[in-house]
Amino acid sequence: MKRLLLPLAIATTLLAGCQSTQTPEPDQLRGTGDLGLIIERATGSVLVVDHSEYEILDRVEGLGDLSHASVVYSRDARYGYVFGRDGGLTKVDLLTGTIDERVIQSGNSIGGAISQDGEYVAVSNYEPGGVNVFDSDTLETVAEIPATYVNEEGKQDQSKTVGLVDAPGNRFVFSLFEAGEIWTVDMLTTPPDVSRHDAGEEPYDALITPDGRYYIAGLFGEDGLSMMDLWNPGQGVQTILPDYGKGEQRLPVYKMPHLEGWAIADGNAFVPAVGRHEVLVADMADWSMVERIPVQGQPVFVMASPDNRQIWVSFAHPKNNVVQVIDSQTREIIRTLEPGKSVLHMEFTPRGEEVWVSSRDSDRITVYSTRTLEEVARLPARKPSGIFFTNRAHALGL
Amino acid sequence: MKRLLLPLAIATTLLAGCQSTQTPEPDQLRGTGDLGLIIERATGSVLVVDHSEYEILDRVEGLGDLSHASVVYSRDARYGYVFGRDGGLTKVDLLTGTIDERVIQSGNSIGGAISQDGEYVAVSNYEPGGVNVFDSDTLETVAEIPATYVNEEGKQDQSKTVGLVDAPGNRFVFSLFEAGEIWTVDMLTTPPDVSRHDAGEEPYDALITPDGRYYIAGLFGEDGLSMMDLWNPGQGVQTILPDYGKGEQRLPVYKMPHLEGWAIADGNAFVPAVGRHEVLVADMADWSMVERIPVQGQPVFVMASPDNRQIWVSFAHPKNNVVQVIDSQTREIIRTLEPGKSVLHMEFTPRGEEVWVSSRDSDRITVYSTRTLEEVARLPARKPSGIFFTNRAHALGL
Repeated sequence: MKRLLLPLAIATTLLAGCQSTQTPEPDQLRGTGDLGLIIERATGSVLVVDHSEYEILDRVEGLGDLSHASVVYSRDARYGYVFGRDGGLTKVDLLTGTIDERVIQSGNSIGGAISQDGEYVAVSNYEPGGVNVFDSDTLETVAEIPATYVNEEGKQDQSKTVGLVDAPGNRFVFSLFEAGEIWTVDMLTTPPDVSRHDAGEEPYDALITPDGRYYIAGLFGEDGLSMMDLWNPGQGVQTILPDYGKGEQRLPVYKMPHLEGWAIADGNAFVPAVGRHEVLVADMADWSMVERIPVQGQPVFVMASPDNRQIWVSFAHPKNNVVQVIDSQTREIIRTLEPGKSVLHMEFTPRGEEVWVSSRDSDRITVYSTRTLEEVARLPARKPSGIFFTNRAHALGL
Repeated sequence: MKRLLLPLAIATTLLAGCQSTQTPEPDQLRGTGDLGLIIERATGSVLVVDHSEYEILDRVEGLGDLSHASVVYSRDARYGYVFGRDGGLTKVDLLTGTIDERVIQSGNSIGGAISQDGEYVAVSNYEPGGVNVFDSDTLETVAEIPATYVNEEGKQDQSKTVGLVDAPGNRFVFSLFEAGEIWTVDMLTTPPDVSRHDAGEEPYDALITPDGRYYIAGLFGEDGLSMMDLWNPGQGVQTILPDYGKGEQRLPVYKMPHLEGWAIADGNAFVPAVGRHEVLVADMADWSMVERIPVQGQPVFVMASPDNRQIWVSFAHPKNNVVQVIDSQTREIIRTLEPGKSVLHMEFTPRGEEVWVSSRDSDRITVYSTRTLEEVARLPARKPSGIFFTNRAHALGL
């Protein structure tokens, strides 16, 4: 017995040594620039994918209610922060395919953002209304910003928050639905400095332009959109596209369009009409309407390819099995595709040679070439919705 | 003796097992989104850096002549392709800090590009004049494209090639100095389909706009710049800024400005004047001159921050110890910095919260906050020149 003990101890030492200090072999390492997460909403899981090889690397489970879930990335593009509908915030390690940290930070939330410097993750909450800010490394609470306002009865109340984005200068910007305000939060001051601005009636969603200058909120309570120039916040908001919203509506609205899906190409904004089978084209210099492009259904996402050459459009129920592709120069539909039942989201590869499309009720992802507009790959997924690639780590407002 | 042999064999097996198949520990892995390479031109080496931690991870040596060297990245952001002046093309693994592949592909080269899909790396050569294309994985030759033309004596000759960039549709675009032409190469056809266009007299450098639409070549043999709309190549080139070049010149020119350093902000191009102490501002809608901003020397690089809010300017000898920062909205100089002797290059972090500046003759890198314009870090480097972060993997034309 004694003779056996020594060799086992040596073997154990060797094994322990290689676990903790041995350098991994090069083929055990990989870059994180071509990875992504795909939300599987019904099962509370996400897929880790490699968009160079069209490969599913891992399925990570236990993320709670992932309807309307979205993802932002750490500045090293290793970790995805998944914002669930149930207040869950989950930090997923794409390299190990595991949950690194997870907190339930409110009862009901919608979307989030990561600060320009990557230090802070913020979550937009309905209940209780406000924004919570976390350390991106540990998910420990850094700040709680209740969205307080005085309601119609003259009492202090908390508003639902929507349209949360990051902005240059390490700021967060979001809108208060009931309060009708836009708030900017400066994360370089301690405690974070909050500025309040009137936004119009019931902002329900928002976007920020790719350079982080203009914050545009859609309004549920009135027509038009509110645009704030973050270079000149003292000027307050300006109303653009004054008929946008119910003034546009001619058909029952199956789904309010996603504002973050707006495309900007060649000085024009391509905007989903509300309740109409049209994509609107507006000149961004003066926000005049340039054209209305007829499409096959009510648009939900209207997204420009990274080279601005194509506009890809997805649609609301019942015409949601189709995607249409518009040439941004001629403004004509150049292809109508059928990627499967209930198309929910589209994501371009970083330099735009391909686009990944999720179809929830066909349980699959279809990948198209933007050059040939032909299918190049297909991946299985359980009721997939959002697709988020890691290059978002490097973009403002995503 | 015999009793000892068995345990050693077990230990060896365990050790071999952990080298080849054991999963690395999470703390042995890292994302590649916050890495970069810094060229050390005099010693033929590059530094692997982490811009989250201001850390030098590795020095990789043996890359040959690195004057005017530049870098592009694989689509997974793990490998950097370093283009040397001596025809060397080196594939550096940022995760292991080693040379993965290296070829001497010509006698004399200047710059390169990686195709939109990441499959091909192209190098622009002076001698023999032309472009060579390599498999990005193995660096095996895929295509050799001699830059043939008929010279003034009526004989077949090869032109030096310059201004090589990638463009959407998996194309490469470059200029032929002696031939005065712009060529586009389609890498989706076999063999690659080449289109030739007149460029004007002696194009010496070029840039492509961030969406990959406009290719703009500077001309050594005449004034003005040649702009080609890649959406409409049949229209040929258009001359813009007709006085640009020698028509601008009032002082001895110490260095022709780098065209890839142009800044585009708010619909205006900020352009280094040739031989004058000015940054030119041109309206991109019609290329009319909006303003001439006086600066302290002859500008070399004129670069916009990712949020387009600031324009950072470096200068030619003898005023090259200074960097000036211009507010893109007011067009006023808001700060004059002294990052060390002989400033050669600047690189913004992907979302623009900081900028890294190399000063060759102070052997250091200085990092500034774009918010405070104060120094936040300093790193030692041997005669550093170009700084290239891995987010370039995801951008068109970089």
